Amino acid sequence: MRGAVIHAPGDVRFEQLDDPKIQQPTDAIIRTVATCVCGSDLWPYRGLEPIGDPHPMGHEYVGVVEEVGSEVTAVKPGQFVVGSFATSDNTCANCRNGWQSSCLHREFMSTCQADHVRIPHAQGTLVATPEHPDDEYVPSLLAVSDVMGTGWYAALAAEVKPGSTAVVVGDGAVGLCGVIAAKELGAERIIAMSRHESRQKLATEFGATDVVTERGDEGVAAIKDLTGGIGADSVLECVGTAESMKQALHSARPGGNVGFVGVPHDVRIAGEELFFSHVGLRGGPAPVRRFLPDLIDRVLTGHINPGLVFDLTLPLDQVAEGYRAMDERRAIKTLLTP
Amino acid sequence: MRGAVIHAPGDVRFEQLDDPKIQQPTDAIIRTVATCVCGSDLWPYRGLEPIGDPHPMGHEYVGVVEEVGSEVTAVKPGQFVVGSFATSDNTCANCRNGWQSSCLHREFMSTCQADHVRIPHAQGTLVATPEHPDDEYVPSLLAVSDVMGTGWYAALAAEVKPGSTAVVVGDGAVGLCGVIAAKELGAERIIAMSRHESRQKLATEFGATDVVTERGDEGVAAIKDLTGGIGADSVLECVGTAESMKQALHSARPGGNVGFVGVPHDVRIAGEELFFSHVGLRGGPAPVRRFLPDLIDRVLTGHINPGLVFDLTLPLDQVAEGYRAMDERRAIKTLLTP
Repeated sequence: MRGAVIHAPGDVRFEQLDDPKIQQPTDAIIRTVATCVCGSDLWPYRGLEPIGDPHPMGHEYVGVVEEVGSEVTAVKPGQFVVGSFATSDNTCANCRNGWQSSCLHREFMSTCQADHVRIPHAQGTLVATPEHPDDEYVPSLLAVSDVMGTGWYAALAAEVKPGSTAVVVGDGAVGLCGVIAAKELGAERIIAMSRHESRQKLATEFGATDVVTERGDEGVAAIKDLTGGIGADSVLECVGTAESMKQALHSARPGGNVGFVGVPHDVRIAGEELFFSHVGLRGGPAPVRRFLPDLIDRVLTGHINPGLVFDLTLPLDQVAEGYRAMDERRAIKTLLTP
Repeated sequence: MRGAVIHAPGDVRFEQLDDPKIQQPTDAIIRTVATCVCGSDLWPYRGLEPIGDPHPMGHEYVGVVEEVGSEVTAVKPGQFVVGSFATSDNTCANCRNGWQSSCLHREFMSTCQADHVRIPHAQGTLVATPEHPDDEYVPSLLAVSDVMGTGWYAALAAEVKPGSTAVVVGDGAVGLCGVIAAKELGAERIIAMSRHESRQKLATEFGATDVVTERGDEGVAAIKDLTGGIGADSVLECVGTAESMKQALHSARPGGNVGFVGVPHDVRIAGEELFFSHVGLRGGPAPVRRFLPDLIDRVLTGHINPGLVFDLTLPLDQVAEGYRAMDERRAIKTLLTP
């Protein structure tokens, strides 16, 4: 098979690799129908995370099952499946509690920018669609496997409720999907923080009622102005820097909630400040598996169209250009087709 | 009037002070029926917080209204009242949201270890009991004004639910009241972390089903042992040190919640660790005013008896001994009667 391998910052290559094989009776092998580049892939690409030895990349995927291990009965060869970036047996205590991304057998997927992928714990990880979906749904189903599932979790962690005011910090694919989630969960006012025209436009299409272009203290002041001086009920932090976290915490009202889904880089939260803010805080890798049936249904019934976050589609062998376009912010998110 | 004044670490004196007067039409003056020493009073007493100029102390009180300003209609002279350590107008946006301890007009009470006290924003701060309560209820009503209200908030912030498992970190008066709250909110298993026999006994009387004496990593390991290796659904952090916060965060299961009510001292939370823990975190000065009617009712109907946390009662003029006894851990909490 062939897939993406990162060698150094800025150096992603499309290479011949060993074909994946069933290693455990709980594995499945899928033929990838679509995969993509994630904002979090840019951390090592930009040299902001260590790379070590060259290794495959990618954790988002939809595909068709080619082979399953002897213990896999929930999906079968020929079915179109959606998974999560984190595998889960879906039977352990954490899975039963709804926290499949803390599954006791969790593995983070990392080889999905390829034409074939081995899925560990396939029984608990993969969800098959009722039938093979039309091509038009593929981007949105792919989004569900990570960015839409993550935006959904951000909105739940931020406790978005009907009639509430939500702020979305970050206008990447996850932030934009966070706007969709806030809308679906009934937020009356959705404030997208974005300074990029194309992303503002998409945020508005997804349901944002206001756009704030300022950042930092000025951004917080703008949010306060829009919320009667109090702050927002819910803030979705979809970046992961110290600045974005600060902005998120300061934008929430006393008793409000911040859901943070950007993997934190050098973020330290001062206990006393959090204490006096009265803000609730929850984050983490989204338990996407919990949401898959619901989100797949919302996609296939046309309720949501998160696939619009893909504004660049390339053949998989041009994966390097897919990274470059996102790094240079020429693209929000790159979809790759084998 | 006479009241407590702190001059330096370890130096609290009972002194003659100016009588309080109505300063604003929203004020009330109460004659104190009981007041007490708070665990948080020990921070300056122990030299762990700056004292500055000598100043009065105390923020917990029940009493009888003597005089009200022209805008106060909710309580009247002669009524027995319970208040909160934080004043609130109970009309601003934060109050309407239930976060009265973030009232836009909040003042923290600080002169209550005295025979008379001026209560700002009395209209929104004080709640009168249906009638003058029997003496036996006074300690519990006093507890409601701070430690019981705070333990209640800790349990709510930790999202204690019927059938759940709760851990209480800290065996001071707030932690012990947290046990009461967890019990009232339906926790099936309540694990008190305590190494003091008298406090273990009271925790058990209040509803603790298990006691863990270990601290730090050993304490966390003990909690994991008691919770199938996963951790607790809810953890009430009732201390406020870096160690206790760490212990609390590590004791919660993925997707669990920590409610933290010990004022944090030198606590820094690593964003990445919180992220991967999936633990929700909320703290702050308890919005006691929100709970007053309910908690007063639970006291007067005999459902809860948080007054048992007072294991030393002294005349107000012996306030210095009251501090000493708590500092030396001879007493859990000192009640003072003018």
